[in-house]
Amino acid sequence: MIIMQPGATREQISTVIDRVHANRMEAHTNVGTRQTIIGVVGDRHNVPADQFESLPNVQSVEPVLKSYELASRQFHPENSVFSLGGFTIGGDEIPVIAGPCSVESRQQILETAQAVKEAGANALRGGVFKPRQSPYSFQGLGEEGLEYMAEARALTGLPLVVEVMAESQLPLMSKYVDMLQIGARNMQNYSLLRAVGETHIPVLLKRGLSATIDDLLNAAEYILFGGNNRVVLCERGIRTFETATRNTTDINAIPVLKSLSHLPVVLDPSHSTGHTSFVSAVAKAAVAAGADGIIVEVHPDPEHAFSDGQQSLKPEEFARLVKQVKAVAEAVDRTLV
Amino acid sequence: MIIMQPGATREQISTVIDRVHANRMEAHTNVGTRQTIIGVVGDRHNVPADQFESLPNVQSVEPVLKSYELASRQFHPENSVFSLGGFTIGGDEIPVIAGPCSVESRQQILETAQAVKEAGANALRGGVFKPRQSPYSFQGLGEEGLEYMAEARALTGLPLVVEVMAESQLPLMSKYVDMLQIGARNMQNYSLLRAVGETHIPVLLKRGLSATIDDLLNAAEYILFGGNNRVVLCERGIRTFETATRNTTDINAIPVLKSLSHLPVVLDPSHSTGHTSFVSAVAKAAVAAGADGIIVEVHPDPEHAFSDGQQSLKPEEFARLVKQVKAVAEAVDRTLV
Amino acid sequence: MIIMQPGATREQISTVIDRVHANRMEAHTNVGTRQTIIGVVGDRHNVPADQFESLPNVQSVEPVLKSYELASRQFHPENSVFSLGGFTIGGDEIPVIAGPCSVESRQQILETAQAVKEAGANALRGGVFKPRQSPYSFQGLGEEGLEYMAEARALTGLPLVVEVMAESQLPLMSKYVDMLQIGARNMQNYSLLRAVGETHIPVLLKRGLSATIDDLLNAAEYILFGGNNRVVLCERGIRTFETATRNTTDINAIPVLKSLSHLPVVLDPSHSTGHTSFVSAVAKAAVAAGADGIIVEVHPDPEHAFSDGQQSLKPEEFARLVKQVKAVAEAVDRTLV
Amino acid sequence: MIIMQPGATREQISTVIDRVHANRMEAHTNVGTRQTIIGVVGDRHNVPADQFESLPNVQSVEPVLKSYELASRQFHPENSVFSLGGFTIGGDEIPVIAGPCSVESRQQILETAQAVKEAGANALRGGVFKPRQSPYSFQGLGEEGLEYMAEARALTGLPLVVEVMAESQLPLMSKYVDMLQIGARNMQNYSLLRAVGETHIPVLLKRGLSATIDDLLNAAEYILFGGNNRVVLCERGIRTFETATRNTTDINAIPVLKSLSHLPVVLDPSHSTGHTSFVSAVAKAAVAAGADGIIVEVHPDPEHAFSDGQQSLKPEEFARLVKQVKAVAEAVDRTLV
Repeated sequence: MIIMQPGATREQISTVIDRVHANRMEAHTNVGTRQTIIGVVGDRHNVPADQFESLPNVQSVEPVLKSYELASRQFHPENSVFSLGGFTIGGDEIPVIAGPCSVESRQQILETAQAVKEAGANALRGGVFKPRQSPYSFQGLGEEGLEYMAEARALTGLPLVVEVMAESQLPLMSKYVDMLQIGARNMQNYSLLRAVGETHIPVLLKRGLSATIDDLLNAAEYILFGGNNRVVLCERGIRTFETATRNTTDINAIPVLKSLSHLPVVLDPSHSTGHTSFVSAVAKAAVAAGADGIIVEVHPDPEHAFSDGQQSLKPEEFARLVKQVKAVAEAVDRTLV
Repeated sequence: MIIMQPGATREQISTVIDRVHANRMEAHTNVGTRQTIIGVVGDRHNVPADQFESLPNVQSVEPVLKSYELASRQFHPENSVFSLGGFTIGGDEIPVIAGPCSVESRQQILETAQAVKEAGANALRGGVFKPRQSPYSFQGLGEEGLEYMAEARALTGLPLVVEVMAESQLPLMSKYVDMLQIGARNMQNYSLLRAVGETHIPVLLKRGLSATIDDLLNAAEYILFGGNNRVVLCERGIRTFETATRNTTDINAIPVLKSLSHLPVVLDPSHSTGHTSFVSAVAKAAVAAGADGIIVEVHPDPEHAFSDGQQSLKPEEFARLVKQVKAVAEAVDRTLV
Repeated sequence: MIIMQPGATREQISTVIDRVHANRMEAHTNVGTRQTIIGVVGDRHNVPADQFESLPNVQSVEPVLKSYELASRQFHPENSVFSLGGFTIGGDEIPVIAGPCSVESRQQILETAQAVKEAGANALRGGVFKPRQSPYSFQGLGEEGLEYMAEARALTGLPLVVEVMAESQLPLMSKYVDMLQIGARNMQNYSLLRAVGETHIPVLLKRGLSATIDDLLNAAEYILFGGNNRVVLCERGIRTFETATRNTTDINAIPVLKSLSHLPVVLDPSHSTGHTSFVSAVAKAAVAAGADGIIVEVHPDPEHAFSDGQQSLKPEEFARLVKQVKAVAEAVDRTLV
Repeated sequence: MIIMQPGATREQISTVIDRVHANRMEAHTNVGTRQTIIGVVGDRHNVPADQFESLPNVQSVEPVLKSYELASRQFHPENSVFSLGGFTIGGDEIPVIAGPCSVESRQQILETAQAVKEAGANALRGGVFKPRQSPYSFQGLGEEGLEYMAEARALTGLPLVVEVMAESQLPLMSKYVDMLQIGARNMQNYSLLRAVGETHIPVLLKRGLSATIDDLLNAAEYILFGGNNRVVLCERGIRTFETATRNTTDINAIPVLKSLSHLPVVLDPSHSTGHTSFVSAVAKAAVAAGADGIIVEVHPDPEHAFSDGQQSLKPEEFARLVKQVKAVAEAVDRTLV
């Protein structure tokens, strides 16, 4: 990692980058408000630091102690903030993403989209390719579902967050969605991470069921490395011995991720608890702990949902949640969008 | 569990209790604002429900589906609220317990007590018998430590919360402390739980490192069964695969415990994270999720603490935490004491 | 699941299968030594059992209680046994698969192949596409590695076991390898499982780091459902709180899997322990517990291995392991190949 | 840790020990076959090594890198072997401990004792004080149970292994039992460990449900530190996310413990699996992995057992297990007693 002096010129920065390339490595540049930092990635074993330290206006060359670099706060000391639809994520405002687990029908998604929009949601989630434990469970509507999602966006203005399960789905996905979700079970599907890294679509990267925080940041690094900087990390509960809830919300992960990385962090209290009765409490906890957003499952008729019914809120329950989360957000000097 | 009609007289209740005793079982009575519930504990296999259903003003006899009964919300539908020192726990107000991991010296504990009192703490914690992983680590000051704690109480008015490690320490402890703490490693030390159940000292029961929520409530049942009703449950992090933090705060446990039990629930963000940088975020999360209190490690000089220095806040950091937690408490319609 | 009478004719079986198809479901037939069982997969909600029970020589229609069916022992009461290279797996003989974590060079793999062959290995493992936690770690030699592997097979006669990481690698892989490995991190990459299920190449399916036994059998079901019956289940350690070893070998999984499923089960003591000193003890334990094979990492120069050096045995250590495992195999009435 | 030269005299060793005492520390001496090692325990911070290095025939003073010392193989390079009843543990022969979870009646324990004796058991287990999750479960027969156990010993010659739950039970226990068991839930009940360390009764120390291997060895250190050297470590399964079995047998723990410590290691396949169908496979695995013994629950009528019925073998199943374990023991160059 090469840190430039505050006054370094564009030309001087280019000189450093050329030297990086001459060493057959890649340079990723973070132009901060105060100074520019150049992340150097590739095989670093044989490159002496003094090759760079002697260049004009290079302040220092610092080793990267973690296996990830572009995802680290060391490389990018300020929070990453980027916009999606009409709001930003990673800054002061806290977006709420909501919608059903699966898109089940045109009517279901249009109805849900309007209801969550009214209740205060800023983006619409909905799965069309579903990673289900059993091959005999509902696998999603595929492209038909994407068309309904697009219609819901036209109706409400909400940007779309949809899970991508395979590289081969990317061309189709990229025609419809505003944010790609990588599901927990694919968090270490490195081929998919690489492919997504080569798109320019923002990514919501869910933590794997037994992924450590270090694993999660390395998975993000695969995407960043491809040139896609708009990655949001999502805590969605980890697998532990406790069976009273579907997963264990690792609330510690929020301040830990915020300290190690500049990327926005959101929490999914629906998956992290697995029961509607606990979603609201944990959503509030997330925001109190510093989360940059929440993503919540909402269904107009949870009892007849094709999937995740027991953890999906009804629209009116979701509306109450938004109101409560708003109060907590203000208590920690943030606002909902 | 025998549920009396709202208008049942004292005499009718006595008749039921006598019948319970005649069946060689014990009766625990919860006189609620609306109606009285009689918990029947003992060997229930051979007692037909209709023996009780036919008694005057018995509304119904309901089976207890859990292995615990007195700890369940079914038995005691309203929150348990009880007072300690000058505040209540389990009601609207949220007490903050603070102090060092170990009492190290007279000066250290007096200084800490004054500092945490000033910053807003309502009770003083401090260990004098320490359950340490290695027999070669500092084991605590014993009775000398209790005397310093008592002096700190005289100075500040703060009630004392001290861990008891063995039945044999109870006579000594009961002379000094206002609340007994059962540590995580002793949560299933049933002999100790029984002994503590026979005192009338309030108890802070910490969840074991790998105890399920069900285990914790059964451990509480041992204490309640002995006749000691003033039990506070404490989430202090569980052991999982994640190593970025000392433990994993199971934030889900807060709403889950509140739904299953009437007992107050507090969270210990110092042990549940293990690092000072994360204590404040998790303390706020706890209160947002519905915790009835927090217990925080504070030390005047954490770098030289005999134990737990890396997770102990300095008094000024603790003062900031209290201020932040206060704002979150108000956002969820609670107040600090 | 439709169970035919022992004497059912081919024609009667066809009639049942036609009826299954008429209901828009798929039939998977297991012709056992005693009687034929027809697994019916698809949406079973609306098909009345009596449609099938009344057909000639149908013994009974039994519900499937698990979410998987083709992988269950209920569907296929006898052990699945199939041949690979010159040996069988799933029967009395126990094959040993060995080789380096990564193919690093032509010399390394040829040397290792000869050494493991001599020491008693029956198949050669070696990764050419490596799922690495960090994008900056060695990612494998790709097709070049496959060519070296093929050369090693020509030299030693050992069939090749190679990990496939993405659907897009399948056409290349299928030209070279004898058995596809699905790695732990891809165990729930359902797109890949489906794609592999449509090949006719035997599969070694590794259990995910936090996959339950139920998850593993459902993952196998995805492959079987595609028509590929030759699936071997591989226990390779799970993620727990214990850090003394890289993973925790779930030795219980061996008898549990053998009781729930007809598929062969192998154990990978290299990954499940992570340290050469423990590989041999755990390999013996696996065979004593009923494993149908073991897969072991061997490297000619572990200290300079590109990956997994600390858990790779030297050829002479591996030779000792084979000798010890042989003795244990005989003690449980099995033999090495 | 002070290592004496091979030829050091008793007098020279005494001189070293006196110097240790002069520094207000304790000395624990291990007289090995080759040379004597003196473990120095207490506050080591202020004692310069050269005080000891200059004494006659001191070979070296070596730091202890672990938090435990007396339990480490560094302090005691040879296996600890000690005798119990008519057999040894820790050496070549492998004892089998068997019996019911709880002593339920005189007839039950006498019958079981004779049956397990006949089937090849070397010691009799049976609980009389039971640590039960719920206070309403059967808590054991207490002294009455001990009397029945003593009668069973008189009848069969089998030494008795009985769990002690509290310091206050020790005087009673010490009149009856040959080996004290510390249960998993009390593994970090340090008051109990200290008390047991001051007896001279051999101890079977069970690993806690979420205790690391390091925790277990530190718990053993508490007992050794008190002067009681006859400690046997017992792996009995740990708590993980897997629910197919009651616990997860950490088979890795066997070779890991044997490498870190000189103490004998046994495995309890009844608790570590929780189901009779898996006990035998895991018992064999334990011996194959290097365990020094096994402890198995056996009940004449498991379906009506007061506790642990689903994991208790019938006498005839146990007899088959012993036969199978014997074959595996011989395959790894050990023998049953």
